[in-house]
Amino acid sequence: MRSVSIIGTGMMRFGKYSDTNMVDFAWPVVKAALVEADVTREQIQVAYCGSAASGSMAGQRVLKRLGMTGMPITNVEGACSSGAIALRLAWMGIAAGFYDYALAFGVDQLNLAGRPPGLIHGTEDWDFAYGLVMPGLYAMRARRYMHDYGVTETQLAKIAVKSKRYGAKNPYAHFQEEVTLEQVMASRMVADPLRMLHCCPRSDGAAAVVLCAGELANRHSPKPVRIIASSQHSGKYMPGFRDMTMPESSLRTAKEIYEQSGLGPEDIDLVEVHDAFTINELLYSDALGFSRPGEAVKLLEDGEFEADGKIPMNVSGGLNSRGHPIGPTGIAQVVEVTHQLQGRAGARQVEGAKIGMTHVTGGGVAGLDHGACTMHILGV
Amino acid sequence: MRSVSIIGTGMMRFGKYSDTNMVDFAWPVVKAALVEADVTREQIQVAYCGSAASGSMAGQRVLKRLGMTGMPITNVEGACSSGAIALRLAWMGIAAGFYDYALAFGVDQLNLAGRPPGLIHGTEDWDFAYGLVMPGLYAMRARRYMHDYGVTETQLAKIAVKSKRYGAKNPYAHFQEEVTLEQVMASRMVADPLRMLHCCPRSDGAAAVVLCAGELANRHSPKPVRIIASSQHSGKYMPGFRDMTMPESSLRTAKEIYEQSGLGPEDIDLVEVHDAFTINELLYSDALGFSRPGEAVKLLEDGEFEADGKIPMNVSGGLNSRGHPIGPTGIAQVVEVTHQLQGRAGARQVEGAKIGMTHVTGGGVAGLDHGACTMHILGV
Repeated sequence: MRSVSIIGTGMMRFGKYSDTNMVDFAWPVVKAALVEADVTREQIQVAYCGSAASGSMAGQRVLKRLGMTGMPITNVEGACSSGAIALRLAWMGIAAGFYDYALAFGVDQLNLAGRPPGLIHGTEDWDFAYGLVMPGLYAMRARRYMHDYGVTETQLAKIAVKSKRYGAKNPYAHFQEEVTLEQVMASRMVADPLRMLHCCPRSDGAAAVVLCAGELANRHSPKPVRIIASSQHSGKYMPGFRDMTMPESSLRTAKEIYEQSGLGPEDIDLVEVHDAFTINELLYSDALGFSRPGEAVKLLEDGEFEADGKIPMNVSGGLNSRGHPIGPTGIAQVVEVTHQLQGRAGARQVEGAKIGMTHVTGGGVAGLDHGACTMHILGV
Repeated sequence: MRSVSIIGTGMMRFGKYSDTNMVDFAWPVVKAALVEADVTREQIQVAYCGSAASGSMAGQRVLKRLGMTGMPITNVEGACSSGAIALRLAWMGIAAGFYDYALAFGVDQLNLAGRPPGLIHGTEDWDFAYGLVMPGLYAMRARRYMHDYGVTETQLAKIAVKSKRYGAKNPYAHFQEEVTLEQVMASRMVADPLRMLHCCPRSDGAAAVVLCAGELANRHSPKPVRIIASSQHSGKYMPGFRDMTMPESSLRTAKEIYEQSGLGPEDIDLVEVHDAFTINELLYSDALGFSRPGEAVKLLEDGEFEADGKIPMNVSGGLNSRGHPIGPTGIAQVVEVTHQLQGRAGARQVEGAKIGMTHVTGGGVAGLDHGACTMHILGV
């Protein structure tokens, strides 16, 4: 397997762009990644587009605007993991020697007026049909975790305060205003104990990276970022009772990526986890081995999740503040880690970061922890 | 690159299954492929699901029913090419050594009551918005081709007669009744010159194949079918005037697959082309090199497209008769060629077939010939 590097990134501020079309905001993001990578359109040999709600031919429609068709363009759907899976396929294609240069990007527009959201689940998913949508699912996980480990609503709210504080330092974040603990705890209830400010917003946006074979990377970037490892799994089907707090697919994906990379949690300088809800930072800190089960809240209270802490956690603001447009979310995490490892993350910079990790889940499928969990380890 | 073989197939009769859910008819098709391949669920290391209109997590929802989760499950959207791209990714994964066993399948349900079709194009595609939907596009191609090469409506109708004749021999075909030339020419006009019987039906269905590394294939199948070559492209963006009869993406994909395989049109014993409309058999016979431009109709008239002809063309009945559920269409072509090469195609068997080809396009994107064209060459 060949080494694969990220040589260009494209990112936009996630937000609500209801009066435009996803193609209009996505193509400049792809172009920015090409310009940063100093590659021509013609050098890109393959493109993978992650999208969950943009209908048919999402990638083709965006790339057409740049005159970048004529190559294989593959659209990938993996719910919130869509973008990360697109990246993984691009990585595999170069690692295996099929291609030297690849584009991976994600796009979705959840706030498009007059259009159904496009995330249509089959009626066979009774859990969903009867109301176990994502906020409900994570509320149950939160309540159980709080019960098991004595975590309080105030502690949970502190996660939102932290996320919004970092979001305020991130020009790409949907929400860029700090909030107080009181504001979080007074925000309207969505699914007990998760209030509005505990939940990520439905966003619109796009994010892109250009990858190339490791041996070509120095021609294109003063500081290419290497993809050290990539892992993807779906949750195991567990009919009947299961422990709602156990992020089964994340545990398994983390185990594999540590084995693949030869690294452990202690080697990771920063991590972006799938914090669609505040409770997730605790659940996934434990699952990814940064804390022992139930002890993540101690890291939070001790400031170890901060940019200067032991394991900087979502210092981009995470899904909670940067926003969650589904398709591009996994790519946006990779863009953040790339910028951090290149020392260009501005006011939220993790000093001296050499190795970063991204983690994204995706898809509520009844009986599964998740339909997809996708992780990457990046390094300089 | 390692050799990759097909060791199991699963197929169902395509048709209208409005009173059931796609999961209900898809899982037995996947199971049939596993049984035929004599593999356990646990041996499958990765799954790729091609779907264009089944919403989020299509693959996970089907495989959950078989307890087959816990592995990477990647959903691929490439309009009519979705299934063929899923197969290509599975092939790449094994060829590169990431996996030894993979599942590729396709599923869609275009007739699901009370559900939008899911094939939502962006409003930026003005061609579509103003009526240049697929029958309109191919009607223009047909008229131009007929004008340029003197093809008549009667000749075009003969293609439908042939397709329906073979569909009547295919237990998997949506339409299994022969039609007369008179019936075709009296069927209602859809888009001049294409009448109802010139057009493929909107179908529901699923199709699946199990692949493994070539060196393992003989343990699983008495006659494994090798994937000799795989190629995928999107159409090149051509703003303004373009020759509507030129299947640009098919020409380029065919060129690449012949180069990759070291084979030429003369080596192909049978072909399944994307005959969503009758005119396509002529367009693609020319594009794939079975005839010189404009001369495909001579092959038709001389009986060379028949099972005992020079280049048996869609002897499954093609999309025209087998039906076109979008997601599984590309896999169904591969299942047909696999059965033909294994000598198990019953009344439509092409005697002594050793090498077969599949060709599927997909996605109308304004300014592009197609959003995707995907081809495979299989051999025994």
